[in-house]
Amino acid sequence: MIIGILGGGQLARMMVLAGTPLGLRFVVLDPAPDACAGQVAPQIVAAYDDRDGLQELAERADLITFDFENVPASSAQLLAARLPIFPPPQALDVAQDRLSEKELFGSLGIETAPHVAIDRLEDLERAVVELGFPAVLKTRRLGYDGKGQRVLRRARDAEQAWGELAGVPLILEGFIDFDGEVSMLAARTAGGDVRFYPLTRNRHAGGILRFSEPAPPPPRWTSPGAEDLETQARSASRRVLEALDYVGLLAIEFFVTEGRLIANEMAPRVHNSGHWTQDGAVTCQFENHLRAGLGWPLGDAGLRGPAAMVNLIGENPPAADVLATTGASLHSYGKTARPSRKVGHVNVVADSWEAVGERCAELRTRLDLVD
Amino acid sequence: MIIGILGGGQLARMMVLAGTPLGLRFVVLDPAPDACAGQVAPQIVAAYDDRDGLQELAERADLITFDFENVPASSAQLLAARLPIFPPPQALDVAQDRLSEKELFGSLGIETAPHVAIDRLEDLERAVVELGFPAVLKTRRLGYDGKGQRVLRRARDAEQAWGELAGVPLILEGFIDFDGEVSMLAARTAGGDVRFYPLTRNRHAGGILRFSEPAPPPPRWTSPGAEDLETQARSASRRVLEALDYVGLLAIEFFVTEGRLIANEMAPRVHNSGHWTQDGAVTCQFENHLRAGLGWPLGDAGLRGPAAMVNLIGENPPAADVLATTGASLHSYGKTARPSRKVGHVNVVADSWEAVGERCAELRTRLDLVD
Repeated sequence: MIIGILGGGQLARMMVLAGTPLGLRFVVLDPAPDACAGQVAPQIVAAYDDRDGLQELAERADLITFDFENVPASSAQLLAARLPIFPPPQALDVAQDRLSEKELFGSLGIETAPHVAIDRLEDLERAVVELGFPAVLKTRRLGYDGKGQRVLRRARDAEQAWGELAGVPLILEGFIDFDGEVSMLAARTAGGDVRFYPLTRNRHAGGILRFSEPAPPPPRWTSPGAEDLETQARSASRRVLEALDYVGLLAIEFFVTEGRLIANEMAPRVHNSGHWTQDGAVTCQFENHLRAGLGWPLGDAGLRGPAAMVNLIGENPPAADVLATTGASLHSYGKTARPSRKVGHVNVVADSWEAVGERCAELRTRLDLVD
Repeated sequence: MIIGILGGGQLARMMVLAGTPLGLRFVVLDPAPDACAGQVAPQIVAAYDDRDGLQELAERADLITFDFENVPASSAQLLAARLPIFPPPQALDVAQDRLSEKELFGSLGIETAPHVAIDRLEDLERAVVELGFPAVLKTRRLGYDGKGQRVLRRARDAEQAWGELAGVPLILEGFIDFDGEVSMLAARTAGGDVRFYPLTRNRHAGGILRFSEPAPPPPRWTSPGAEDLETQARSASRRVLEALDYVGLLAIEFFVTEGRLIANEMAPRVHNSGHWTQDGAVTCQFENHLRAGLGWPLGDAGLRGPAAMVNLIGENPPAADVLATTGASLHSYGKTARPSRKVGHVNVVADSWEAVGERCAELRTRLDLVD
């Protein structure tokens, strides 16, 4: 069985590393000749809309998946006409557009930030009155890691942000004064089997994920009502999975505010906030994504023990410095250094949540990482 | 950093899978064009004594290791003259010859089976009188998985076994009526840091390893004196590691008889009886072998929780059948089916040792495996 992956970044790379022991073979398509998944699987170097490249991928693979959601719709259609693909194209359509995403959430009774679609400057002027300040102007498509976003704090910010982002469909979102950010990852098979990972708490800085930690078993975290959050998140995730007849791994990010969850966005793929599952869950997200796509029994998504993940941004520190921390597992992506680029992550495990925290603190200090 | 591996079988393949997240790159040399490590790393197809192939390996790699111990001495020398290699060639020399191995064990005060070197039929005739029946006639070199061995139960077996094995140096070993078989795996850096894995209990059938299970934390196993066994095994392992100025992962197999350990053989490499460490130890044997060779801090070799390993021999069962057992991780080697061939293994984890045992039993029944 050969899995074709559109996109050859670190998510594809880690799918290959997780899927090879299952007896799977892979081929990736990525326009970058040095795509990091190309170090572990044969690569077709071609643009994501290159018909010859897509044709070759379809010929060499038995089943297609993605390592990013911004797959050109025409490419997904071309592939879907030739062979099975997962997650389903309708999930890509929804996830590619912040407005569609919010409309889906809304239709399923999942709370989102108040929002207004912005196509003209007049829309924006009306919307800031409606939503008030602060608010966040975002491109509807192709944003990631905080790119394509401007926070508006006063009237004159609106004009400047419009100048910077206009030309593509935008959305203005009411600012959520959140207590925290969490994500729910779940895998679903075509037959409707679902496994939920423990709700994961995330910390961003500069628009980039820095730290993720799954919820310990009850009593969970220390914030009041935290146990309810997991139930809310599972319920929202299940509704989205079923509405999209989803297959594979789905991540939904939420803001936590006053004990409730507000859906921020979804990713129809394996997700950075689930990287801790490689060392902290019985079955990692990469394996469960593949198992789901193949219709195989899903693996136990429960905790193996206390764990957390620290992202490596910009450049990889010397491996020996990372590994000097007991319980630290390095996951380097084999990428060259570049400011703000995700180049790896470290999973930290220990026998207690306190020890995980201490080891993460030690690691951050030694590596001089942003907290 | 590029690691060259002489040998491209499943051990090389799993080294690549464990080392890639550390940011390492690999190149393997193996004469078989379809060597299974060649699915995950570039491969030089050449005989193990092919000078051009070895030359190319030396040029492309920064550091050399092995996935088998029967590396031709001249090849190891050629490589060692060009670049650093680990484990040290003297460990290969010793491990390639059952007599040298026993002499090393003996010189370090580690008990072995009584034995006599056999070069002529007269040697054998004298030796069976000395050691008595039953006894085991073995080739001194190139035996594995029970190959090159004959059990002698009476005088006439000696002549027949001689007829089948003669022509190469042999060794006759007194038969050990053992209660069990165990192995001690340890990693050592050039600087002398050592990490011991928990003593592992092994079960063979037809000369091939079928099942491995690490010792639970105290109280260990149920046999009397079992706690002492771990201490004995660590002590023996430490003596061998230091005598050979060893670097990398070393496995020593022992028979257990009347509460003491009798060293059977050693493998200067990662070892089948340590495959459970992929899912049951904080840091697996493959990663610690590489960390040791690179002089990086060794990882925690302790248990993450109850675990065991079941070998897949001959052919891979359908992945979905393996994964239907909760807590089962499939490690397929991407090899074609062949009788008695090791084609994969399954690691089983659970919250208790009892549950591991139940899951292994369920797996064996579903897959119709030899117990």
